[in-house]
Amino acid sequence: MRPSSSPWPELAGPVPPAVPPPGLFDEILARGPVRAAVSDARWLHHLLAVESALAAAVAAHGLIPPTAADAIRAACERVELDPTDLARAAAESGNPVLPLVRALREVVGPELASQVHFGATSQDILDTAAMLVARDALALVRTSVRGAADAAAALARSHRDTPMAGRTLLRHALPVTFGLVAAGWLTGLDAAEDELTRALDATAVQLGGAAGTRHAYGHSGAGVAAHLAASLGLAAPVLPWHTDRTRIGLIAGALGTTAGAVGKVARDVSLLASSDVGEVAEAAPGGSSAMPHKRNPVASVAALACASQAPGLVGTLLGSMVHEHQRAAGAWHAEWRPLRELLVTVGSAAEWLRTCLSGLAVDPAAMAANLDRLLAVAGLADPAAHLRAAGELVDVALTAHENRE
Amino acid sequence: MRPSSSPWPELAGPVPPAVPPPGLFDEILARGPVRAAVSDARWLHHLLAVESALAAAVAAHGLIPPTAADAIRAACERVELDPTDLARAAAESGNPVLPLVRALREVVGPELASQVHFGATSQDILDTAAMLVARDALALVRTSVRGAADAAAALARSHRDTPMAGRTLLRHALPVTFGLVAAGWLTGLDAAEDELTRALDATAVQLGGAAGTRHAYGHSGAGVAAHLAASLGLAAPVLPWHTDRTRIGLIAGALGTTAGAVGKVARDVSLLASSDVGEVAEAAPGGSSAMPHKRNPVASVAALACASQAPGLVGTLLGSMVHEHQRAAGAWHAEWRPLRELLVTVGSAAEWLRTCLSGLAVDPAAMAANLDRLLAVAGLADPAAHLRAAGELVDVALTAHENRE
Amino acid sequence: MRPSSSPWPELAGPVPPAVPPPGLFDEILARGPVRAAVSDARWLHHLLAVESALAAAVAAHGLIPPTAADAIRAACERVELDPTDLARAAAESGNPVLPLVRALREVVGPELASQVHFGATSQDILDTAAMLVARDALALVRTSVRGAADAAAALARSHRDTPMAGRTLLRHALPVTFGLVAAGWLTGLDAAEDELTRALDATAVQLGGAAGTRHAYGHSGAGVAAHLAASLGLAAPVLPWHTDRTRIGLIAGALGTTAGAVGKVARDVSLLASSDVGEVAEAAPGGSSAMPHKRNPVASVAALACASQAPGLVGTLLGSMVHEHQRAAGAWHAEWRPLRELLVTVGSAAEWLRTCLSGLAVDPAAMAANLDRLLAVAGLADPAAHLRAAGELVDVALTAHENRE
Amino acid sequence: MRPSSSPWPELAGPVPPAVPPPGLFDEILARGPVRAAVSDARWLHHLLAVESALAAAVAAHGLIPPTAADAIRAACERVELDPTDLARAAAESGNPVLPLVRALREVVGPELASQVHFGATSQDILDTAAMLVARDALALVRTSVRGAADAAAALARSHRDTPMAGRTLLRHALPVTFGLVAAGWLTGLDAAEDELTRALDATAVQLGGAAGTRHAYGHSGAGVAAHLAASLGLAAPVLPWHTDRTRIGLIAGALGTTAGAVGKVARDVSLLASSDVGEVAEAAPGGSSAMPHKRNPVASVAALACASQAPGLVGTLLGSMVHEHQRAAGAWHAEWRPLRELLVTVGSAAEWLRTCLSGLAVDPAAMAANLDRLLAVAGLADPAAHLRAAGELVDVALTAHENRE
Repeated sequence: MRPSSSPWPELAGPVPPAVPPPGLFDEILARGPVRAAVSDARWLHHLLAVESALAAAVAAHGLIPPTAADAIRAACERVELDPTDLARAAAESGNPVLPLVRALREVVGPELASQVHFGATSQDILDTAAMLVARDALALVRTSVRGAADAAAALARSHRDTPMAGRTLLRHALPVTFGLVAAGWLTGLDAAEDELTRALDATAVQLGGAAGTRHAYGHSGAGVAAHLAASLGLAAPVLPWHTDRTRIGLIAGALGTTAGAVGKVARDVSLLASSDVGEVAEAAPGGSSAMPHKRNPVASVAALACASQAPGLVGTLLGSMVHEHQRAAGAWHAEWRPLRELLVTVGSAAEWLRTCLSGLAVDPAAMAANLDRLLAVAGLADPAAHLRAAGELVDVALTAHENRE
Repeated sequence: MRPSSSPWPELAGPVPPAVPPPGLFDEILARGPVRAAVSDARWLHHLLAVESALAAAVAAHGLIPPTAADAIRAACERVELDPTDLARAAAESGNPVLPLVRALREVVGPELASQVHFGATSQDILDTAAMLVARDALALVRTSVRGAADAAAALARSHRDTPMAGRTLLRHALPVTFGLVAAGWLTGLDAAEDELTRALDATAVQLGGAAGTRHAYGHSGAGVAAHLAASLGLAAPVLPWHTDRTRIGLIAGALGTTAGAVGKVARDVSLLASSDVGEVAEAAPGGSSAMPHKRNPVASVAALACASQAPGLVGTLLGSMVHEHQRAAGAWHAEWRPLRELLVTVGSAAEWLRTCLSGLAVDPAAMAANLDRLLAVAGLADPAAHLRAAGELVDVALTAHENRE
Repeated sequence: MRPSSSPWPELAGPVPPAVPPPGLFDEILARGPVRAAVSDARWLHHLLAVESALAAAVAAHGLIPPTAADAIRAACERVELDPTDLARAAAESGNPVLPLVRALREVVGPELASQVHFGATSQDILDTAAMLVARDALALVRTSVRGAADAAAALARSHRDTPMAGRTLLRHALPVTFGLVAAGWLTGLDAAEDELTRALDATAVQLGGAAGTRHAYGHSGAGVAAHLAASLGLAAPVLPWHTDRTRIGLIAGALGTTAGAVGKVARDVSLLASSDVGEVAEAAPGGSSAMPHKRNPVASVAALACASQAPGLVGTLLGSMVHEHQRAAGAWHAEWRPLRELLVTVGSAAEWLRTCLSGLAVDPAAMAANLDRLLAVAGLADPAAHLRAAGELVDVALTAHENRE
Repeated sequence: MRPSSSPWPELAGPVPPAVPPPGLFDEILARGPVRAAVSDARWLHHLLAVESALAAAVAAHGLIPPTAADAIRAACERVELDPTDLARAAAESGNPVLPLVRALREVVGPELASQVHFGATSQDILDTAAMLVARDALALVRTSVRGAADAAAALARSHRDTPMAGRTLLRHALPVTFGLVAAGWLTGLDAAEDELTRALDATAVQLGGAAGTRHAYGHSGAGVAAHLAASLGLAAPVLPWHTDRTRIGLIAGALGTTAGAVGKVARDVSLLASSDVGEVAEAAPGGSSAMPHKRNPVASVAALACASQAPGLVGTLLGSMVHEHQRAAGAWHAEWRPLRELLVTVGSAAEWLRTCLSGLAVDPAAMAANLDRLLAVAGLADPAAHLRAAGELVDVALTAHENRE
C-alpha cells in the first residue's frame, strides 16, 4: 500500500492496515493500489500521525513538555475510534477532526487534554493528512505510469522497424513503424511522470491555527511548521495555505494530464485491437455474456473509462479553489471527494494501461497486410525512407527515456 | 431506503437490505438515503431482479417454459455471491453481469442454464438495473427537494411581510421581504422538482440482445420488452438504447439543475448567517476545534459543497454519451461511477438543505437593523411600496406551489 | 438568420441585419446560422426590442403615456450606438444596459427620459434579451437536428435490410442492418429534438426591477410582465428569476444532451469511414496538405470537435447557477459567454451532422465483406433471423419518427 | 500586444497589427491585451511566420535552395488573404493551413511551389502557430498576474499591522491583520506565476510531416526541428507530438490554477466590499441602471466571472487529449476554441484583479469596528499576540516575493 522506499516513519497502532474489499465495480474503475492508499483507514492513520507529529514538533520548541508529546503519541497509537460514530460526529462539526481530537483528549486525560492539537485548527490536521494521502497515492500512480512507460519502451525497442500504416483522422496516411507508435506513447507517459513528480514535490504541511496566524506558537511558528514538515516528509510552505489552494490546482492538473496521456494510448490500443484493424491483441481479453466467439479488449477499454473521469474531477477541484477569507464556506469540503476520486481513477487508468501494454501481442503480419493496402493506393516513391526515419526517432525517444534520472 | 409508495414488487431473497456503514466523510458528503439506494447491495438486488423479471417476460411469450422462469426466480432469490469474487470476475469480462449469470446458471443446473439471461446481453441487464437504481435514487432526491421546498414555502408564508435589505452584487439595494427571498428559493426548488419528475419518467428498460436486434425473441421482441418494463415499473423505449444515451443526458441535466437550485439557496443562507449579516441562524450549527465561541452553519456549507460536485459529474456523463457502434469501448463503463456519484451528491445537497431550511431561525430585528442602514443611504420616497409588492409576489409563488399536483 | 415562422414582431431600425464575417476557425467550429443569431448585432437588436416592448407594456397599464411608449419605440429604432463606446461603457457599470439606457434617454430628451426603462433593472433587459437570443438560436439548432434526423430516417429506410457487422467494444459481434444503425441514430436525434423543444418552452421574460419586487408597477406587476411576455413571444414566469437560474440549467442540459446525441452519430460515421472499415464515405471529404491520395471525413470530424465542447460549457453554466441574494456577484456575468458558445457549438455540430448524413455514401458491398469475416468466425445458426429482427426495429423507429407532431 | 522583451524576430508584412474592436461583452469578459494576442490577425501572422521559418530551416540543411527560402519569406510577407475565403476553404479541408499553403504557392509560382511547406503537414504549422499564440498570451497573462501580485504585496506592506477580524466559514473567528490577508493573496498569485512560467517553457515547435516520421528531411529531421525552434523562440521536443498532448494539458492546468488563485482574491474583495462588511472599496465602482445610490464592485465581480470560465475550459482541453493514432479525428480541432478562450478569460480575470488591487481603498476604521464586535464575543486573553504573529508572517511572504528572480 505504501511505496517501499518510504522515508517517513510509520505511526504504530490501532489503525488496521486492512485493504477494504473491492466494491462491485472497483476492480474495473478503482483498480490497483491507490484505492487502499486513499481508504478511510489510511485517512485515519494519517490524521492521527499528524496529531502525533504536531505534538512532537511543539514539544521540540518547548511549547509542551516532552512527556506530553509521548503521551499524545501513545494515545494516537491506541485510541479506538468507531467509524460510524466518527462519521456522524464529523457531520455535526463539519469535519472529522473535532471528534478525533475529542477522543484523543479523553485518552490522555484532563491534565494533558489542552496539549493535544496544540495551536492547531481542524483544517491544519485535515489538509496535512490530505497531503499525506495524496503523496502516497501520487507515488503509486507514478509507479504505474512508469511501468506503462517501460512497457511502451520495450515495444518501441522490439518493433523499431516493424512497418505499419500510419493513420490520420482514422484514414491510412503514410508508413510508420509500430516502434514509432510506441515511442510516441512513451514520450507522453514520460511527460506525465514528470508532472506527477512535480505534484509530489508540491505536497506540503498545513499549519496556521484557527485564523492562519500561528499565534499560539509565539515566535516559533516557522520552526514548528518546519519540524512537522520534516517529520512527515512534506514540504514547508511559505505561509499557511488554508485558502490558497494553488497546490491543489497543481496536483489536479498533473493528474488530469496523466489521464490524458494514458487515455491516448488506451484509445490507440482499442482501435488497433478492433476486428477491422486487428494489429494488436490484449493478453487477457474478456468474454461476452452473449457471444462465445467474442474477445473484448478489457484493459484498454477500462483504462479509457477511468481516464475519462479525470477532466470533470479536475474541473471540480479547480472550481473549488475560490476559498473565502480564512476558511471556505463549502469550497474546502468540496475538495475531499474529487481529490480522492481523481487519485483513484487516474491510478486505475494507469494500472490498466501497465497491464495492457505489458502483455500486448503485436501482429506484424496484420500490420504488413494493412500497410500493403495503403501502399497500393498511395504509390510512394520510397516507402523505406519512412521506416528509416521512424527508426531514428525511436532511438531518440528511447535514449531520452533511458537518460531520465 | 425505498419510497414507501413503490409500485413495483420487490424480489425476495438473499441480498441483504443492509445499509452500508457511513465512510469517514459520508455523513457530510453523502448524506441522506440515496447512499443506501445506490449501494452495491441495491445494485446486486436490481441486477437479480432484472434477470428474474426477464425470465418471467420471456416465459409469458412462450420462449421458455413457465417452470424455467420459476426456477430462475428462485435462483435469483437464493444465489449466494461473494462480493469480492464477483468484483474480480467482473474485471475479467468488463462487467459484473457475466459472472452473475454464470452463478445463476450453476444454481439452476445444466438443463435450465441456457434459459437464464435468455436472449439478453450484459448491457441489457446492467442498464436496466442502473435505471432501477436511478429511479429509486431520483425519487429520494425528489422527496428531499420537496421537503426543502415545503420548508421554503413555510418561511415565505411566515415572513411574507418581514422587511429586509435586498442585496445585489452583495451591496444593499432596495427593500424586500424575507418572504420574497424564501419565495424565490421556492420557485427554484419547485422547478428542480419538475426536472426530477421528468428524469424519473425517462427511466426505461433496456433490452436488445448482443447487437441490439432482439433477434432471439423472433417477433416477440417488443412484447418481451413491454412485459419487462411493466413488471419493473420502467418505461418501454422505442428501440434498444445501448448506444443512444440521451436518457442519461436528460437525467444528468435534471440533477445538475437541481444542484444549482439547491446551491443558490445554500449560498444565500451561508451569507445571511455570516457574522457580518447575522439575519438567520441554523438550528444546529457546528463547533470549532480551535474556537469555543464559534458556531458554524454546517448544513448550508455542506449543501454547497455537495452541490458543487454536480457540474463536473454532469460534464463527465455528457462527455461519455459518445458510444461507438453497438456497444461503447469505454464510454459505457465511464457512466457507472459518475451516475452513482451524481445521485448521491445531489441527494446529499438536497437533504442538507431540507434540514437547513426546516430549522432556520430568522431574526427580523437584525433584518430591520440592516435595512435601516440601507434606508439611511437610499432615501426612498415610499419604502412600504416595496414591501407591499414583495408580499404580492409571495402570494403568487405560494399559490403556484400549492397548486402543484 | 431567423426562423421564417417567427411569431413575434421585429423591431425596425438601425441595428443592421449584417451577418458578421466568419473568423478563421468559424466555418469549422461555429458553422451554420447560429453564429449570426447570437452575434452582437442580434444582441443589440434584442436589447432594444425589450426596452421598446417594455415601454408598450407599461403604457398599456397606464404607467406611462402612450405617446411616451411611441417615442421610446422610435428611439429604439433610430438610436445610434458606437459598438466600441458601448463595450467600454458596459465595463464601467458591469453590463451594457446602463449605457444603452443612457443613450435612449438622450434620444427621447429630458422630459421623457424617466419613462425609458420604466421600473426595470439592467438584468431585466439583459436576461430577457438573452432569452430572445437563446430562443432564436435554439430554434435554429432544432432545425439542424431535425434535418439530421430526417437524413438518418432516409438512411434507415433505404438500408432497412442492408446487412452489416454489428460491433461491440469495436469487435465484430453479430449481424445487424445498416438500417438499424441509422434508426438508432434517429431515435437519439429525435430525443434531442424533444429536449430542444422543452428548452424553447422554458425561454421566459425577466421583469423584477432592482431588487425583484416589481414595486414600480404597483398592483400591475403581473400584468406588465404578461404583456411583455406576450409581445416578445416568451413565457411569463411565476416570479422574477434574477437569481433562480433553473431555466438556464434546463437549457444547458438540453443542449448538452443534443451534443451527445450528435457526437455519437459523428463518431460512428468517422469509424465507418475509416480506411480499415470503409463502409461509408462522406460526400465532400477534405484533402490533405501533405498527402494527395488522402480523403478526410471532415464533416463527422468537425461535428465531433464541436460536440466535444458542450460538456465543459454545460458545467460552467451549471456551476454558475449559484447566484447570491437578489443579483449575483459574478455568476450572472459568468453565464453570458458559455450560453452563447454553447448555442454556437451545438448548432455547429448539428449542422455538420446534417450535412454529413445528407450526403452519406453507403457501400453495401464493403459491409457484406466485413460481415462475411464475422460470419466465418461466429458460425451462427440463422444469420437471417438477425436481419429480420433488425428490420422490424427499423419500422418501429421510422413509425415513431413519422408520428412526431 | 507583444511583450517588449520578445526575443524572436517578427515577420514583416501584410498581416495588420490591428487590434480588433471589442465585442459587446469583451471589455468585461475578454479584458486586457490577451484578446488581441489571440486574434485571427495574430494567428495568421504566426501561421505565416512558421512557414517562413520552416523554409529557412530546411534551406539551412540544404534541402531547398536559399533563394527559395528567401522567396518564401517574401511571399509570407506579401501574400494577401481574404479572411472570409480563407475561413471557408479551411472548412473544406478541415483546417486553414491547406488554403494558406495554396495561396503561398501561387505567390511563389509553379517552380518554387513544391518548396513551400517542405516536408510538413498542416498540423505542424497549426500546432507551432498555436504555441506562438499561447506563448505570447501566457506572457501577457503572467504580466497581469505579476501586477496583481505586486499590488497585493504593496497592500501587505502598508497594512502589515492593520487589525481586522479573521473569518472562517463566513463567521468571525480570531484577529488577523489585513496585511496577512493580502500576503495570502500574494503567495497564491506568486504560485500562479510559477505555473505560468512553466507553461511558457513548455511551448514547443511541432514538426513531424504527414505521419510524424520527418521522412522528408532524411537524417536532418532533428536539425531542421532545432533550427525552427531556435528561430521561433520555442522549445524543441523529443519527438513530434501530433498526438501526445501532454504539453496542452500542462498549459491548461497552469491556466486553471491561475484562475483559481485570481478567483480567490476576487471573492474576498467582493465580500469585504459588501455593504454588510464594508472594509474595502474599489477605486472605480460601477453604477446601477435602477439605483442612483448604488456603487458596485465591478472589477472583483468581473474577475470572478472570468475566472469561473476556466474549469470547464480546462476540462474540455484535458478531455480532448485522447488523439487517435497519428492525427486525431476531432480531438485536435477540439482544442482550438478552448485554448484561445482559456487564455483570454484567465488573462481577463488577472487584468481585472490587477486593476482591482491597484486601486483598492482600505478602511481600517471599519475593520476595527468589525473586530471589536468579534472581540466582544470571543473574550481573548491576548489579542495583540495574534497581530504580532500575523505581522511576522507578512514579513516572510514579502521576503519570499522579493527574492523571486
